[in-house]
Amino acid sequence: MSRQQAVEAALERRRRLVNDAIEEDLPIDEPQRLYEASRYLLEAGGKRLRPTILLLAAEALADVEPESEDYRAFPAADGGAVDVMAAAVSIEIIQSFTLIHDDIMDDDDMRRGVPAVHQEYDLSTAILAGDTLYSKAFENMLETGASADRSVRALSELATTCTEICEGQSLDIEFEKRAAVTPDEYLGMVELKTAVLYAAAASIPAVLMGYDDAVEPLHSYGLDVGRAFQIQDDLLDLTTPTEKLGKQRGSDLVEGKRTIITVHARDHGVDVDDLVTAETVEDVTEAEIDEAVATLEEVGSIEYARSTAQRLVDSGKSHLETLPDNEAHDLLDDIADYLIEREY
Amino acid sequence: MSRQQAVEAALERRRRLVNDAIEEDLPIDEPQRLYEASRYLLEAGGKRLRPTILLLAAEALADVEPESEDYRAFPAADGGAVDVMAAAVSIEIIQSFTLIHDDIMDDDDMRRGVPAVHQEYDLSTAILAGDTLYSKAFENMLETGASADRSVRALSELATTCTEICEGQSLDIEFEKRAAVTPDEYLGMVELKTAVLYAAAASIPAVLMGYDDAVEPLHSYGLDVGRAFQIQDDLLDLTTPTEKLGKQRGSDLVEGKRTIITVHARDHGVDVDDLVTAETVEDVTEAEIDEAVATLEEVGSIEYARSTAQRLVDSGKSHLETLPDNEAHDLLDDIADYLIEREY
Repeated sequence: MSRQQAVEAALERRRRLVNDAIEEDLPIDEPQRLYEASRYLLEAGGKRLRPTILLLAAEALADVEPESEDYRAFPAADGGAVDVMAAAVSIEIIQSFTLIHDDIMDDDDMRRGVPAVHQEYDLSTAILAGDTLYSKAFENMLETGASADRSVRALSELATTCTEICEGQSLDIEFEKRAAVTPDEYLGMVELKTAVLYAAAASIPAVLMGYDDAVEPLHSYGLDVGRAFQIQDDLLDLTTPTEKLGKQRGSDLVEGKRTIITVHARDHGVDVDDLVTAETVEDVTEAEIDEAVATLEEVGSIEYARSTAQRLVDSGKSHLETLPDNEAHDLLDDIADYLIEREY
Repeated sequence: MSRQQAVEAALERRRRLVNDAIEEDLPIDEPQRLYEASRYLLEAGGKRLRPTILLLAAEALADVEPESEDYRAFPAADGGAVDVMAAAVSIEIIQSFTLIHDDIMDDDDMRRGVPAVHQEYDLSTAILAGDTLYSKAFENMLETGASADRSVRALSELATTCTEICEGQSLDIEFEKRAAVTPDEYLGMVELKTAVLYAAAASIPAVLMGYDDAVEPLHSYGLDVGRAFQIQDDLLDLTTPTEKLGKQRGSDLVEGKRTIITVHARDHGVDVDDLVTAETVEDVTEAEIDEAVATLEEVGSIEYARSTAQRLVDSGKSHLETLPDNEAHDLLDDIADYLIEREY
């Protein structure tokens, strides 16, 4: 089995376990419609990358064979047991809440191949479903069985992370209206909007299980690979065929979305607003996108994005060097690579 | 000074202290527009009833003279110090977040005499301002300096409360579409939507300060007075002159909103949808409202609402009987009375 296959198998097995845990930890209570709407996007799919990173970090820290221990009663540093799966579910719930609210703000009607929650239900239900998931995530993070001291630190990390995600989304909206955004400003926004949740996912098991020295390195790993993940998303929008991407290739260009690529290109004299003339994703042609990509390649923006992502992945992996040398550690390295090698 | 004057003076003094604390604990960070939008409704006014109840509960429990101790370093049962003001601000922040999102859902354009946040800013900013306040409330509740064990319990109470508020809001929306809602169903909805936050406000100081025996009684007090508060709101909509109310008297009737009064009236054979024929608050006449109120009085719905509120206030006060006999305790009794005596 190649490393890539090993990573995909590891992701797939944990994805299933996380899905089971979501059903357990987020039952359909009353009012039924509210809870169905809250679960709707979680049930529509998703790779469960963040909870998987959390579970792997727990295994790397405890230095146990992958999947040899019960995630619901996972060995902590002091011999106690911690329900790291409850923490993993909490992180995925936060991710889902932000997607539901983001889709309203960005006026995106589709997500994961199905209508967005505000389309499938309505605006009020979508706002409320997000709000419900928000508090459910905090409730779940309090159910890990970790000591009160560690729970408080994990909760604090979760709350700060949520505030930062809001700040990042606010900047993202602000940047769309601003003429000039520098690559550093863009990466700062991505850190807040996307990477801090990866950082929380990677570091919270160290907090809950009492591996205090590992908190900071794992946090840094998450910040790096989270930013790399977003850059890869930006690249895929330009390079992955439409049918594989699940949406029109080049839609970021058509919609005038800031990406690391367009921010770099503008910084290097390209009039990115004129890269494609089509005003809607329905009107754009593949030839037009190809031409835009050629321009972006010429000015070095594609290469800049790729090398930035690679640098972040290398940096992310280097932060793990103090962790025990084991299979879970290897998988965390591999996932970092996978994030920028994936094709969708 | 009459008891009513004493209550109003006590409310006014704490309102100012809470306002100062909100400015301290929720500074205008970057991105500025997001934080300004988050603070906008908090700055537009509000009686600060819930944080005031929290501060008074702390004083009643510690058996100290009102305002004799620093709320930022308040004496706990074990001699430690707790920042009960941080908890009070947390509760008010949650209240503000729910109002911002509710105004979007209910399509209400005005609040506290100023445009709602989604009107003053825009929909995206309003959703995001609410989301930011949500996590800020959790961050603030973690800043009380209470022991980790007590912080965890307070956080858990806050998270559960938020989930219940979402459930209540969901039921409120559902009820508007449903033909028949019983008074008990209505009161159950009000408990979730409104009363649980009063219960959290009243009981969380007992949790944080280590007065474990007082948690349950104070929680029950909050549930009772919170429901009484909502019933009084329902009554005021029918009985307070338009200029004093700040919005058209009878607007709940025009908009077809469920209230304890209309739910009771429907239960007693009144066709509440036909009580007023005007379709907008601009079109309704005072005479039409007077006639509707006369019908509701005739069938006993007004009296039912008044007596239910009175019964809840009496019950609420009775839960406090195990608390020390002091001035703060008296003020908690008086506030319960005030909630159903207030005219706006």
